[in-house]
Amino acid sequence: MGKEHTERLRRAGEATEEAGLQALLVTPSADLVYLTGYDPPPLERLTCLVIRPDRDPVLIVPGLELPLAEQRLARHVTEMRSWGEIDDPYALVAGVVGGKAPRIACSDRMWASHLLGIQRALPRARVTTASRVLGPLRAVKDRHELHMLARAARATDEAFRRLLEERIEGTTEREVAGRLGQLMIELGLDRVEFAIVGSGPNAASPHHEPMDRPLRGGDAVVMDFGGTTGGYCSDMTRTVAVGEASARLREVHEVVAEAQEVAVRAVHPGVPAEQVDRAARQVIEGAGYGDRFIHRTGHGIGLEAHEDPYIVEGNAEPLRPGMCFSIEPGIYLQGDLGVRIEDIVVVTDEGARRLNHAPRELAAVR
Amino acid sequence: MGKEHTERLRRAGEATEEAGLQALLVTPSADLVYLTGYDPPPLERLTCLVIRPDRDPVLIVPGLELPLAEQRLARHVTEMRSWGEIDDPYALVAGVVGGKAPRIACSDRMWASHLLGIQRALPRARVTTASRVLGPLRAVKDRHELHMLARAARATDEAFRRLLEERIEGTTEREVAGRLGQLMIELGLDRVEFAIVGSGPNAASPHHEPMDRPLRGGDAVVMDFGGTTGGYCSDMTRTVAVGEASARLREVHEVVAEAQEVAVRAVHPGVPAEQVDRAARQVIEGAGYGDRFIHRTGHGIGLEAHEDPYIVEGNAEPLRPGMCFSIEPGIYLQGDLGVRIEDIVVVTDEGARRLNHAPRELAAVR
Repeated sequence: MGKEHTERLRRAGEATEEAGLQALLVTPSADLVYLTGYDPPPLERLTCLVIRPDRDPVLIVPGLELPLAEQRLARHVTEMRSWGEIDDPYALVAGVVGGKAPRIACSDRMWASHLLGIQRALPRARVTTASRVLGPLRAVKDRHELHMLARAARATDEAFRRLLEERIEGTTEREVAGRLGQLMIELGLDRVEFAIVGSGPNAASPHHEPMDRPLRGGDAVVMDFGGTTGGYCSDMTRTVAVGEASARLREVHEVVAEAQEVAVRAVHPGVPAEQVDRAARQVIEGAGYGDRFIHRTGHGIGLEAHEDPYIVEGNAEPLRPGMCFSIEPGIYLQGDLGVRIEDIVVVTDEGARRLNHAPRELAAVR
Repeated sequence: MGKEHTERLRRAGEATEEAGLQALLVTPSADLVYLTGYDPPPLERLTCLVIRPDRDPVLIVPGLELPLAEQRLARHVTEMRSWGEIDDPYALVAGVVGGKAPRIACSDRMWASHLLGIQRALPRARVTTASRVLGPLRAVKDRHELHMLARAARATDEAFRRLLEERIEGTTEREVAGRLGQLMIELGLDRVEFAIVGSGPNAASPHHEPMDRPLRGGDAVVMDFGGTTGGYCSDMTRTVAVGEASARLREVHEVVAEAQEVAVRAVHPGVPAEQVDRAARQVIEGAGYGDRFIHRTGHGIGLEAHEDPYIVEGNAEPLRPGMCFSIEPGIYLQGDLGVRIEDIVVVTDEGARRLNHAPRELAAVR
């Protein structure tokens, strides 16, 4: 744990109070990493940090992980309660939370088995998601976080640039995805998180899983890929043409590129998140493809690939400087082609700054 | 999806009925892979397979993943209901489940955000964990599963054997963990899941995270590592001595080795799982280290590294042929040393068959 964690724990306690909650229950996840730096794998054995207004945090920890937790956290989380293999850890949580019908929030990614255990131990608790409390804190990145996100984006950009120099016609989606993964690691990312490569008709499936289909002349190829460095994520999408692009592909690509540009320009402090979604959608609707833009415009990014703020109709949350999210409009024509263009942007005092700079125009790959 | 998935879906429907449940809700996880082979990443967008007694399964799927789901599942899951980015997917689940106060089970690893959404849409539902229904099915492995688990175990064994031939005194825990990971991949595993390397006093921390501590002469070193092949997990532990072992280390190692051997011999069809835990514990208690054996004796393994059956006091579930689990007693002396020995075993008609065969004696590494 570092100094930033002490401050984040303090702010989480305040936010818990402001939300009218008696406790915030954080299990292993990006929430726990954000608040403490502690990153044990989520397991069937409960590890849970209990944050309460005006009280010191308490870590509930399996006995066999107490030595690890003490080594990692002892300077900042002074109270730890360990439980043995045949104890009931949920009763321990209930005891720390206290009250008969407490209002509590649980990590969004807490396992159902743990949430059900907590609900059994606190049958009258009213439970909500931790993102209501932590989402706004985590959404605004500090200088170190922006540095890491920019570094992750740079390596991802460079992986794409290098791929463009290689010959990929005839290789399979799976091979191209593997190559993007290799390049991301060579360029310094710690881990590959995903690599979608959808070619030809598969490009119309936004979350397509790469297959053994070889890339053919005339294909549109959507490449959406990302990894992490120091826990921080990258996520970018480019669409290329194998050989000469069809007129339809060029047209659709132009519409998506314009929607993406317009959405980036719509970003300003104070603008509601949904306004950015509308900006992109308006361009695509204007071109007659409104019903083929079948997903939101973007999502926040940080320690998780998807987090607050979501750039979607219905999210009126005003953008704030330091927020970081994707802008990734797309058009998908079933059985034919798909196009998506995605950059990560950070909200500045003046507007948006892109973290991705790889060429966005419709490259013709060999 | 293959033939085995059709059969598993049928049995899951029957088990749902036998458990007196109206629906089993399965989100992306090993549960979904087991039942359908479909393996999308868990996301904030709800994907949920609804299994009901005597009805066809229904897949609730985000619109942008419908093309992928259709490609993967259309032959077996004929009913899919997709939802758009601003729809409420939980209302869709409630509609499919039906009833005012249904009894339902949810995947143990379902995210809390999804479970809370379902509870909001079905406020009078009584919810339990899917492992109550699927645990007993998944615990007994079929021939293909046993083949994959044996293959994963072999590669892990061989990684350890190769490491023993290398010089590791003076290298750090982190380097040894990295080397074990490399070897597992070279030997054919798809993914490294974890590699615990705890040396000297760190060996007394069962879930120690490898650090920059160099291995020194006289250290006990606990190595607990595993990966996956075709989705199936391996998990093994050996404890070695760097150079000459102290008398205490030799004594403790002998006790743990005996406890492990006795526990393996205690495995027979019909024996309650807890009986195997007691067998190991009795040996360690007899040697005066009872309070230093601070975890259960084992856990099931398959598509997840930890799953049913758990080999722990309180689990009276009778062992059945085809069950697969770890036997991994340990003794941990704070500030001094730790020893753990772990093999995966499969229950046969006659007793237990080990899947790990790497030498268990206290090897002296250089």
